[in-house]
Amino acid sequence: MRQVTLDPQTLDARDPLAHLRDRFVGANAPIVYLDGNSLGRPLRATAERVRSFVEEEWGGRLIRGWDERWFELPLTLGDRLGAVVLGAAPGQTAVGDSTTVLLYKMVRAAVAARPGRSEIVVDRDNFPTDRYVVEGVAAECGLTVRWIEADPDGGVTVDDLAPVLGPQTALVVVSHVAYKSGYLADVAALARLAHDAGAWILVDLCHSSGSVPLALDAWEIDVAVGCTYKYLNGGPGAPAFGYVAARHLEDGAFAQPIQGWMGAADAFAMGPAYAPASGIRRLLSGTPPIVGMLGLEDMIDLIEKAGMAAVREKSIALTELAVALVDRDLPQVRLASPRDPALRGGHITLAHPRMREVTATLWERDVIPDFRTPDGLRIGLSPLSTSFAEVAEGIAAIGAALTT
Amino acid sequence: MRQVTLDPQTLDARDPLAHLRDRFVGANAPIVYLDGNSLGRPLRATAERVRSFVEEEWGGRLIRGWDERWFELPLTLGDRLGAVVLGAAPGQTAVGDSTTVLLYKMVRAAVAARPGRSEIVVDRDNFPTDRYVVEGVAAECGLTVRWIEADPDGGVTVDDLAPVLGPQTALVVVSHVAYKSGYLADVAALARLAHDAGAWILVDLCHSSGSVPLALDAWEIDVAVGCTYKYLNGGPGAPAFGYVAARHLEDGAFAQPIQGWMGAADAFAMGPAYAPASGIRRLLSGTPPIVGMLGLEDMIDLIEKAGMAAVREKSIALTELAVALVDRDLPQVRLASPRDPALRGGHITLAHPRMREVTATLWERDVIPDFRTPDGLRIGLSPLSTSFAEVAEGIAAIGAALTT
Repeated sequence: MRQVTLDPQTLDARDPLAHLRDRFVGANAPIVYLDGNSLGRPLRATAERVRSFVEEEWGGRLIRGWDERWFELPLTLGDRLGAVVLGAAPGQTAVGDSTTVLLYKMVRAAVAARPGRSEIVVDRDNFPTDRYVVEGVAAECGLTVRWIEADPDGGVTVDDLAPVLGPQTALVVVSHVAYKSGYLADVAALARLAHDAGAWILVDLCHSSGSVPLALDAWEIDVAVGCTYKYLNGGPGAPAFGYVAARHLEDGAFAQPIQGWMGAADAFAMGPAYAPASGIRRLLSGTPPIVGMLGLEDMIDLIEKAGMAAVREKSIALTELAVALVDRDLPQVRLASPRDPALRGGHITLAHPRMREVTATLWERDVIPDFRTPDGLRIGLSPLSTSFAEVAEGIAAIGAALTT
Repeated sequence: MRQVTLDPQTLDARDPLAHLRDRFVGANAPIVYLDGNSLGRPLRATAERVRSFVEEEWGGRLIRGWDERWFELPLTLGDRLGAVVLGAAPGQTAVGDSTTVLLYKMVRAAVAARPGRSEIVVDRDNFPTDRYVVEGVAAECGLTVRWIEADPDGGVTVDDLAPVLGPQTALVVVSHVAYKSGYLADVAALARLAHDAGAWILVDLCHSSGSVPLALDAWEIDVAVGCTYKYLNGGPGAPAFGYVAARHLEDGAFAQPIQGWMGAADAFAMGPAYAPASGIRRLLSGTPPIVGMLGLEDMIDLIEKAGMAAVREKSIALTELAVALVDRDLPQVRLASPRDPALRGGHITLAHPRMREVTATLWERDVIPDFRTPDGLRIGLSPLSTSFAEVAEGIAAIGAALTT
């Protein structure tokens, strides 16, 4: 898979998705943006869409907007996301809440669905919120956390998971793409292993959705959560999405603890007691954040146009160029990510003791990666908005910052 | 308090806040909007602000926006809201999540802070989400719900609350303004009663914040939650706010169950175990919804300019006109709200067996109240965006719909 050429101009000229970069705000500005995996750039269409939403849809339709579109939007947008990005048939995905809140609902629902089992399994290098939620739920429900120990420069393999699984496992929580190393887990294999033990699997898709092709239905994932402000370009704090496999909705096994009117069987009956809606609507609690969904709608349209396979192909080409340039030009840096692109998502982490100050220096020079403790400079290459030239400039700037 | 004149043109001409209506999108359109208590109109400034936010702040600052402004925005905006609207000193208010999610956090935190007590008290006519959350938390924590029985056309009084309070009461949950009747509860007196019993009080401010002057600190409220899309004009599904009294933050008594990175003592340390932040930040869980906060910022500015006392004065004048016109012109309708404006928030409900179809008819005629089961047509009069002429047109249209 190594690039035939390391010349970024040649790679940009050959890039079949290059013309889509113009659709993003500022994509041709001098800034080198290497953090699209933390906060994706806005689409130009989104700027105009939010303005017209305020003036026409909110301002013009007013409360009628709920009947006309917004009440169903968490589910219709969820279905669009399912079709274009998640590999999920309709009726299993809803948009709303933060990733953390959805993780909480999912972990609570999963352990409730596996009564009598006393353990939740999670890896020690999972994103803090995932670990904090698991620890919190374990404490409140009287369960034990079993920790997966995996290679911190890689991620969770079946060999790492197997030893901590057992008849007491209620749930396995893993990230599809690890937030530091970028390791791309074989979640289908992890799901099979979890299911063999009688457990559910919850997959955090924050760093894979919109970057890596997903097949949640085919992989038999039980529940999944992801954010929409990274490779789905929904904007800062845009609502998260949750997926619940149809089999757990159909048999009524899925029940989440935050009982609100928007997840009730009939929201406007306003009856005396809570009865959950029959499908994925039961994942909802309060009034869904409509304005925060607009950017996501635009990005799903663009991803559909590009196709997830092409997005992944460019993503690999971008990280391959970054790795090759690091190998050639930055011998003092350790690649703290998988070298095989098939085991990697859309970002890589470069380790060096000085990376905290290097990141600060780069920011002053309008080169924007991010820093992850203790020594990682993380480069996230959002496929539709990042050029090969940007990658090359970024690696060169890291080299310059490291040698000054 | 009865109006000297029922002539809407005269009242509009005398209204010192009338000129502010021009600041709202569509306020001079032919639509008669009587549902500002469900979804407030957008400010014109907000349409431009969201566009410029996408292009300049999100698109231009990108991930740096978190360091520069967004990370603190839930708390700085909370402080602004506290100062202008809530009567809350800084450091006690945060913006984020939905009302339902914040209610869940607050109820869980409150019962955890009163260990050994087995009852949660809530009124039977409280908004569904409040009741559903209370019932859900009671079930999961092994507590009992004690129901306050109050006048459905009024609301919870100290006489209603006293009989259900006792040494087992952990928490009292009430709405400041009842969502159906519009009853304005004396929450300071209810708080004293709850405290005498050793319980906390949680006040739902959804229908009062931005309409009725609040003094949460002076009233010694323990915890409060409110939404920002009604009289605070934040937009459909804009994030809610939560208030936790400083005394419960200072003594560490407040701990909410959804442990996320944004509520941790050091979000970017990403350490091995969750340690809550020391102040109101501990109310947060996931990444806060920044785009959804922009409309709220604009409306707080406008309320500050108008002053909450003047807002309340106009609110009373609007509902007084509505009541007087109903008395004069709609003898077949029952006022299902307090007649005394001192006992009323910014909306009234008119009861009649045909109100469901009347509401549907009115919507077709661009007169927009809302309907609440079983027979209530609800008129919400957002003070800064509603004219007296609109009220008169609305009442006349209800009369016409009832007689056809």
